[in-house]
Amino acid sequence: MALTTDFGLDDPYVGILKAVLLSFAPAARLLDLTHGVPPQDVLAGCLALEAARPFVPAGTVHLAVVDPGVGSERRALVVDAGRDLWVAPDNGLLSFLPEGEIRQVRALEDPALFLRPVSRTFHGRDVFAPVAARLASGTPLESLGPVVDTFCRIPVPAAVITAEGVRGEVLTFDRFGNALTSLREGDLPAGAWNGRVRGRWIVGVLTYAAVLPGEPLCLVGSSGRVEISVRNASARDVLGLGRGEEVLVRPC
Amino acid sequence: MALTTDFGLDDPYVGILKAVLLSFAPAARLLDLTHGVPPQDVLAGCLALEAARPFVPAGTVHLAVVDPGVGSERRALVVDAGRDLWVAPDNGLLSFLPEGEIRQVRALEDPALFLRPVSRTFHGRDVFAPVAARLASGTPLESLGPVVDTFCRIPVPAAVITAEGVRGEVLTFDRFGNALTSLREGDLPAGAWNGRVRGRWIVGVLTYAAVLPGEPLCLVGSSGRVEISVRNASARDVLGLGRGEEVLVRPC
Amino acid sequence: MALTTDFGLDDPYVGILKAVLLSFAPAARLLDLTHGVPPQDVLAGCLALEAARPFVPAGTVHLAVVDPGVGSERRALVVDAGRDLWVAPDNGLLSFLPEGEIRQVRALEDPALFLRPVSRTFHGRDVFAPVAARLASGTPLESLGPVVDTFCRIPVPAAVITAEGVRGEVLTFDRFGNALTSLREGDLPAGAWNGRVRGRWIVGVLTYAAVLPGEPLCLVGSSGRVEISVRNASARDVLGLGRGEEVLVRPC
Repeated sequence: MALTTDFGLDDPYVGILKAVLLSFAPAARLLDLTHGVPPQDVLAGCLALEAARPFVPAGTVHLAVVDPGVGSERRALVVDAGRDLWVAPDNGLLSFLPEGEIRQVRALEDPALFLRPVSRTFHGRDVFAPVAARLASGTPLESLGPVVDTFCRIPVPAAVITAEGVRGEVLTFDRFGNALTSLREGDLPAGAWNGRVRGRWIVGVLTYAAVLPGEPLCLVGSSGRVEISVRNASARDVLGLGRGEEVLVRPC
Repeated sequence: MALTTDFGLDDPYVGILKAVLLSFAPAARLLDLTHGVPPQDVLAGCLALEAARPFVPAGTVHLAVVDPGVGSERRALVVDAGRDLWVAPDNGLLSFLPEGEIRQVRALEDPALFLRPVSRTFHGRDVFAPVAARLASGTPLESLGPVVDTFCRIPVPAAVITAEGVRGEVLTFDRFGNALTSLREGDLPAGAWNGRVRGRWIVGVLTYAAVLPGEPLCLVGSSGRVEISVRNASARDVLGLGRGEEVLVRPC
Repeated sequence: MALTTDFGLDDPYVGILKAVLLSFAPAARLLDLTHGVPPQDVLAGCLALEAARPFVPAGTVHLAVVDPGVGSERRALVVDAGRDLWVAPDNGLLSFLPEGEIRQVRALEDPALFLRPVSRTFHGRDVFAPVAARLASGTPLESLGPVVDTFCRIPVPAAVITAEGVRGEVLTFDRFGNALTSLREGDLPAGAWNGRVRGRWIVGVLTYAAVLPGEPLCLVGSSGRVEISVRNASARDVLGLGRGEEVLVRPC
């Protein structure tokens, strides 16, 4: 089972989630993808899952919980995406899953599958973990709830082609202060290119080592997205970048 | 084995603790409850353990280390609490264990059970981990040290009934900025209720979704304690709350 | 396998690293030493590994990635250090391994052992993890690359004997705000000693409990290095210490 949440590691929430998983599936292997998604940030959760998914062994049950709508009427889902299975709230967190890969979506509605009583604030523990553990232990998907048509998707900002060049924006930052943008490798012009952010042109390169320490650069990062970095420093701090900051890329 | 400490994850201390556990008990399953207890905060450690305990599989050996008195004369203990076994310093960290569940308390005094030499500053590594691993590997409790009468308890603030209503206080905060209070579900009036903090009345509800984003609310959180929250935001920041802040609850 | 990186836990990088390890070595036991090495801080990585190494079971494959030179010409290495095996970039991260224990050093150069394509920014995922997993799964060291003479070492500050006493410096801090210094137990004078930092003399003791809460002290910490602490508080904050701060020790 692979786990992704916004619970952080300061509180016992992740530990409690795992305790429930192990109660229902004592032999399960637990793989923490990250619990550091910014609180209630569904888009950041999407990006983390998109980056990690290709490297997780096929057949894995993913438990993904970033759940600002807990206790409201938002549905709880299990999704068969062919390569892997997903248990998550229906709030856009699974927007990165390509439509064409979805085989089956079911709604979790049967209280007999959950902890009792179900709290109003911690469905990760009471709803999602028991179902994910059952699924990982061999309970067939079909018995987990009724088929539903589809799931909720949120808009993930994408590249816009303009007269000036390809325009995108900063989506999030990693711990090194690298800015991940909405531009993907396939959005880039053929050949050499540069990026512009806050009115400043920054060289497009293949590797951090192509510039001097302390110098800014753009490159295609390990997740296939264009990143703005500063060698051996934080682009977020040095360039004063924020989320949503416009980025323009054009050939040079 | 379930692990709870205030070591944080920035340093190798938790890794070293686990390395020792695996040296003595290579097949042990390790479950991290949290290592994010605020440094040397025994009460916060208590609250984390209290919240997690009911979800951890019965029979688990708990290793709990929040140990400001390391190297002093405070005792090291192993406790049989019926449902689970506990290895911890005798400083109040186990105050959440109900008196009636305690079957046996023993003091850890035999250097043959510890790493040698025992450092003066890291008994988690040198004393508690070797003993917890031995216990999880089948060493009988009886061979770990002499019986002692009881263990140290610290006062955990509880509800006070006043003419105005039920009074409590903020005990700690979680990563979402929710304030956990000393009031429990059983302390609440029957029917609808509101809470007052810093002179402001806040609506008591069943779920975050009962108020608009950005609005404050009180509810019974997932650990059974009254929490003060702000929907999709941090009550700590938005309401400017601190630890020890008075909270009053009364029917409405 | 034991894992040590500067990736932090906010992003999915550690999760992706483990996903790759488990893809190649599904039965491997993963032991996180720490992922909290300060970003790109090779010396701090060294100190963490030095402190943890003696407690990790013999025969363990260590995967260690603090890699500011990723994508440059720095080599990737596998090292047989007798007691354990190491997969790491050749940038000084393994400087704590004693020369006399090194049995074999090989360079990782065969793309057939890596993920394809190899990114320019995440060799932890694409180069080091696949090799470490193969090694842990029984692939012989000899098949991982050609023998090279040695590996890169960085200077780790050591004690200097002066007329005034033994002089060292603050190397790093832990989460409790304790300052780890370049002075080791063996550098200390026989008998009682004190330490001086920022012009202030601080008492050398055996245990935190030897001074009152809030008072500063020096002692030999759990890693065998002299540490400057404040009982139940942060020496970094209370004494205003920074990295590189001079520390002097002399008999008293």
